[in-house]
Amino acid sequence: MKQKEFTSRLIHVVGEEGVILNPAEQEFYVNDWLGKAHGRTVAVVRPRNTAEVSAVMRLCHQSQTPVVPQGGNTGMSGGATPDMSGAQVVLSLNRMKRIHEVDPVNNTLTADAGVILAEIQQAARAVDRYFPLSLGAEGSCTIGGNLATNAGGTGVLRYGNTRDLTLGLEVVLPDGRIWNGLRGLRKDNTGYDLKDLFIGSEGSLGIITGVVLKLFAAPAGRVSAWVGAKELTSVVTLLNRLQAACGPRLSAFEMMSESSLALVTRHLDGHFSPLNQAYPYYALIELADTNLNGLQEMLQEALTSAIDDGLIDDCVVAMNEAQSVSMWRLREGISMAQVKAGKAVKHDIALPISSLATFVKEADQIVMNGFPDLPIINFGHIGDGNLHYNVLVPLDISPSLYKETTAELNKRIHDLVTQFNGSISAEHGVGTLRRDELKRYKSSVEMDLMNAIKRAIDPNQIMNPGKLL
Amino acid sequence: MKQKEFTSRLIHVVGEEGVILNPAEQEFYVNDWLGKAHGRTVAVVRPRNTAEVSAVMRLCHQSQTPVVPQGGNTGMSGGATPDMSGAQVVLSLNRMKRIHEVDPVNNTLTADAGVILAEIQQAARAVDRYFPLSLGAEGSCTIGGNLATNAGGTGVLRYGNTRDLTLGLEVVLPDGRIWNGLRGLRKDNTGYDLKDLFIGSEGSLGIITGVVLKLFAAPAGRVSAWVGAKELTSVVTLLNRLQAACGPRLSAFEMMSESSLALVTRHLDGHFSPLNQAYPYYALIELADTNLNGLQEMLQEALTSAIDDGLIDDCVVAMNEAQSVSMWRLREGISMAQVKAGKAVKHDIALPISSLATFVKEADQIVMNGFPDLPIINFGHIGDGNLHYNVLVPLDISPSLYKETTAELNKRIHDLVTQFNGSISAEHGVGTLRRDELKRYKSSVEMDLMNAIKRAIDPNQIMNPGKLL
Repeated sequence: MKQKEFTSRLIHVVGEEGVILNPAEQEFYVNDWLGKAHGRTVAVVRPRNTAEVSAVMRLCHQSQTPVVPQGGNTGMSGGATPDMSGAQVVLSLNRMKRIHEVDPVNNTLTADAGVILAEIQQAARAVDRYFPLSLGAEGSCTIGGNLATNAGGTGVLRYGNTRDLTLGLEVVLPDGRIWNGLRGLRKDNTGYDLKDLFIGSEGSLGIITGVVLKLFAAPAGRVSAWVGAKELTSVVTLLNRLQAACGPRLSAFEMMSESSLALVTRHLDGHFSPLNQAYPYYALIELADTNLNGLQEMLQEALTSAIDDGLIDDCVVAMNEAQSVSMWRLREGISMAQVKAGKAVKHDIALPISSLATFVKEADQIVMNGFPDLPIINFGHIGDGNLHYNVLVPLDISPSLYKETTAELNKRIHDLVTQFNGSISAEHGVGTLRRDELKRYKSSVEMDLMNAIKRAIDPNQIMNPGKLL
Repeated sequence: MKQKEFTSRLIHVVGEEGVILNPAEQEFYVNDWLGKAHGRTVAVVRPRNTAEVSAVMRLCHQSQTPVVPQGGNTGMSGGATPDMSGAQVVLSLNRMKRIHEVDPVNNTLTADAGVILAEIQQAARAVDRYFPLSLGAEGSCTIGGNLATNAGGTGVLRYGNTRDLTLGLEVVLPDGRIWNGLRGLRKDNTGYDLKDLFIGSEGSLGIITGVVLKLFAAPAGRVSAWVGAKELTSVVTLLNRLQAACGPRLSAFEMMSESSLALVTRHLDGHFSPLNQAYPYYALIELADTNLNGLQEMLQEALTSAIDDGLIDDCVVAMNEAQSVSMWRLREGISMAQVKAGKAVKHDIALPISSLATFVKEADQIVMNGFPDLPIINFGHIGDGNLHYNVLVPLDISPSLYKETTAELNKRIHDLVTQFNGSISAEHGVGTLRRDELKRYKSSVEMDLMNAIKRAIDPNQIMNPGKLL
């Protein structure tokens, strides 16, 4: 099929306003927001509903045109950007924005894949329920993108990843057929778990068009605290103590190193450490509950006894929501402070929580030996074993040296992660960023299984080629 | 390969004591405990470790011998029983009983597939942690069988199904290769979710040999209550109220109809209703927490206000653990009472919780119209939308009439379940029991996807043929 015929058939399917052919208007869709991934496209197509997605995919199937699905285009790993060939179609879900049903009795919400995450959170709040997925990009990322990448964020410790928040899916397959798995059931043992196969598959098996999400009872509020400690092992022990004392009330347990906090207070106005003194490690802790009676006292008591036992060195419990917010601003400010201070070589890794402290000791040694002048910015969701273990290089580093340093650091850190039976991509996915590394770190059996599934579901390999596998 | 050569090679792999050829000793392995499924086998093979499972599977792959994996042989759907051909091997995991590691810091437990569920619960308790999977067969079912069937049980409302309790798997593939996915990570976005594909696949894709399970903070105790209500809608509304008031403390919410309770008190000695009066519906409610302060008061208050509002009619809050236990005995006694009172035509179904009451009204009407003399025994884990909607037929019914009645009731009830977008097997799986029905109720797209995955991973179709698909 010639390109002209292809685009005119696309227009026939979704209408003029559903196809973007003008390169200037395509800009947003063919580059990622980090400015790292760049591509070209035959056309950006923006269907309005599942039937239109199905018709577009039938056309791409017939013409063997590769398709790059895209949500809010806020990914971290280049998974939603077309390649430079200009032969790939970008299929954007950003006109599929309907919330179909909010069911507070079944505690479910049914939505199109293109709904913005923040709108889903808001729709849950409107019926006095809570949707716990929360991350930096929530004002612009789509729920379909969250599903395709199995997004993590700050709520994982208590509520799990996006996978754990999903009951049902609708998917358009590579040949255009529609799988309707939009079920709002807590239990269903009738065959293979297709849902979880599509979640986290980064658009390589089909296009997620709809979802049934779990809702939860809304917490009545939260209590936060900021803790300083000399050792990372002490922070991990504190995590275990709080799990024992507070059970599911523990809704966040974030860690940052002194160099991470110093970066924030140095580079961002109006950000101050909550403690009078510096410590090598800090933890930001949050309890939340449907009933706030005694919640602050519970946290205060657990932390006081940790100080008495010499486990931690100092702490502040937020006395009100404003103090909670300012503690969280320190944690959330790290990304911005990093951008101001240098270029970050990033590692989004996960480890068994019992190995975290030993891993960090060895990783620090590797960086200090190999790159003695580079600051280590180590922080993360350690309640889930997820570290953002970054190394800062100067802003004026040459592109070639940056590339070389990144490759070398990635290799050394990810080799160590693998020794500890960890993950080289805890929450950001593989995309193009970690694709070559995946082959290095996965067993051949695991790669074979993934490739066999890919061939079974997308035999013509038109779904998001060049990503993940 | 001749049968004699095959069995001698089996013996070469696992030793004399690992192969059962004597039909009398095979009895346990070729029949199910319900007395419903019966089969024959070439040999029962009982490997001691993953390497032996791998060697057995290589042999079966070479000789194209079909394999039926088996754990504790406590399934409800005939999924672990060989067919009558005598050509299938039963591969029992019941000699693979090692718990390899309990890590209270990472909150994980790593075990062989053949470990009995109760032993896993016990190993967690020994380090002051909690493994929440709990079901009637826990003293004899194996964790591998729980994984293969994605077992449910009484802890699902708070902790999820077996799937949600699993972080990593080891699987021997149909050709004997070993996939080592024994990772103890809360976050890992590096490719397709293979783990969840094997969980719930009923032995049709490979043999689960090892697992990394999640552990949780141990609850300090529980509080139970028994509630009587006129309408099922009121019971569902009470569920929503308790979710809002008690959040994750709500650890069980079981329902039973008056006819279910009457069956128990009539047929089992020493079982009495906790209330002075009969009501059409009862709920058994449990709160559990790491901290018991105020827990009983919280439940008491929520139930008192539900009575004041006219939502429920009566309730008793257990004043101690002994009273809790006797409430739970009523719930657990239903299965035994059913056996004494008649033959049960069973439906293990799930529905959106918001449809439960309407569904039951319509289902009751269907049974009363078509089978006016048969009592309906309706109970279940309604916090998860899971009903065990059973119909009792007389003990002395003729086999042919029983078969006919079962088929007719199954069809009518499952048709209705499907109208409500529910599941015809909430927790018991498909096995041979629901295999034909699966084709009736699943879309052709969903069946195609499942069959494509089956062909991709088990191209010679040697894994548990005749089950599930």
